[in-house]
Amino acid sequence: MSAVPAIAAFDLATWSTATLDRVESALSAWVAPDTADDDGHEAPAALREAMRYAVLDGGKRLRPLLVLAGRAAVAGAEPEGMARALDDAALRAACAVELIHAYSLVHDDMPCMDNDVLRRGKPTVHVRFGEAQALLAGDALQALAFELLTAEQATAPAGVQARLCRLLARAAGCEGMAGGQAIDLASIGRALSEEQLRDMHRLKTGALLQGSVMMGAACCDPESSCSTQALQSLSAYGAALGLAFQVVDDILDVTADSATLGKTAGKDAAQDKPTYVSVLGLARSQAYAQELLGQALEALAGAGLADTRALRALADMVVNRST
Amino acid sequence: MSAVPAIAAFDLATWSTATLDRVESALSAWVAPDTADDDGHEAPAALREAMRYAVLDGGKRLRPLLVLAGRAAVAGAEPEGMARALDDAALRAACAVELIHAYSLVHDDMPCMDNDVLRRGKPTVHVRFGEAQALLAGDALQALAFELLTAEQATAPAGVQARLCRLLARAAGCEGMAGGQAIDLASIGRALSEEQLRDMHRLKTGALLQGSVMMGAACCDPESSCSTQALQSLSAYGAALGLAFQVVDDILDVTADSATLGKTAGKDAAQDKPTYVSVLGLARSQAYAQELLGQALEALAGAGLADTRALRALADMVVNRST
Repeated sequence: MSAVPAIAAFDLATWSTATLDRVESALSAWVAPDTADDDGHEAPAALREAMRYAVLDGGKRLRPLLVLAGRAAVAGAEPEGMARALDDAALRAACAVELIHAYSLVHDDMPCMDNDVLRRGKPTVHVRFGEAQALLAGDALQALAFELLTAEQATAPAGVQARLCRLLARAAGCEGMAGGQAIDLASIGRALSEEQLRDMHRLKTGALLQGSVMMGAACCDPESSCSTQALQSLSAYGAALGLAFQVVDDILDVTADSATLGKTAGKDAAQDKPTYVSVLGLARSQAYAQELLGQALEALAGAGLADTRALRALADMVVNRST
Repeated sequence: MSAVPAIAAFDLATWSTATLDRVESALSAWVAPDTADDDGHEAPAALREAMRYAVLDGGKRLRPLLVLAGRAAVAGAEPEGMARALDDAALRAACAVELIHAYSLVHDDMPCMDNDVLRRGKPTVHVRFGEAQALLAGDALQALAFELLTAEQATAPAGVQARLCRLLARAAGCEGMAGGQAIDLASIGRALSEEQLRDMHRLKTGALLQGSVMMGAACCDPESSCSTQALQSLSAYGAALGLAFQVVDDILDVTADSATLGKTAGKDAAQDKPTYVSVLGLARSQAYAQELLGQALEALAGAGLADTRALRALADMVVNRST
């Protein structure tokens, strides 16, 4: 930590707590429990219950924090009304990316995928609500993510809204998260090179983490939009952070226990999945995670960004976390 | 037909053939078979193959036709560049809505839902590619729909792009298609009133059909945007058409055979699902479908719309089809 003095000057816990208060309130309001619609007809209450179960009261919310830290990195001297609209867009983006993450966990846990029964210390959605409802809840959460970004109440310029949809769709789709999961599926029981492993994780978890940073960065004033250099710096930061997250995940899968993780530990090895630990060994994986942290911090230096303290602290947290 | 002279003056087959040529080409290009990405890394080819299998070479493409007929109904004397951009947006919207429809069929056919093995005369996606790949293909198709609407190559004003995303997300999500499927799930083996049945279908199939019309109508010049009255007329048309589609579907499920339908006939009764035929009887269902056709056509009359011939012909086709 001593090599990174800026981190010491920033209290991540205080910032995270305040930030997540807003995110949790917004998620609870936007993934609403009931829904007398315009015509007063009965709403599919069971589906909404499954959606709320999947989203609320769980998770570290890393992706929303990255979105809002990304917004802080580009926030400038915007006119007050514009600043409010962009802050609203960033909050919507933070929730949207969490809905995508939540839906991916619901589908990933299903019997035809990882067949996991425990998530964040609770029964998984299909265990609690049945497979069909879990499938639909995941589908509906993905749609809701895009609805949040473009809701009639959204006040950001339409160009910002459209860019947020584009970034989220790319990060979630076949050249992002879903594509990475498909490669993962095909890799079980196969020996992967380090490069193939990196490609898989770059899509499977990296795309959405990097996308979170870039969505935050997209919440900037169209009149004085972010410099290309600043966006490239944030993109490099996001790529390094996304990879570091996965390397550390693989490390924790062998070094932590299920109670600490809140999910089944050791399942990668049990399922014969290639991981950084299986390819590089534990010590080299740990060194690689620190190297990626260095790359992420370096990318932020001197890029003409506004306030990168939260991004720096989050990178440190991702690499040095214990759960 | 004699009471509706405008339909006779319009050759639906010629219009559909020309329109679907554009849609099929666009779908084939946008659901691309391979994808050397920016960095030249290996793409998840198996996932893309499953996505293409789910989307290409099949289906009546009713939803894309409704989008493009909706666009025709609002197209005005736009400047040439704007007209081209809005036509491009309508083509993107037509493909996006078909991707949503295709994904819903993939997930709906899975063992935990309808467990269907035959679709459009071919093995369903999970039969052909496995359940996990089918789940991911559906998820990736939904993301791709929103990516198409907001791609960097999209030339329509950002406000049009954002509105298209909002309409599609609402039509697909928990207050639309996915919500309707959840109600459907809960209704198996239960007696439903006609009103409950209507509520279910209004969401399950009606929302996306009505949404298709409204997405077409959203492709209009922001400078001279559609009148509220015109949009209300199109919304009423879409609601009547969406309901008529389902009533006719229920009728065909008991009057047609599997070979004609290209899917398993009689499965509603076999699964003890409530249908219009089971609630109203066959004769009253047929009369109701004709009544809804009348409502759809009436909604289009005198609403200050540009060219409603395709919309009128499509309504006639939906109600009087034999497959």
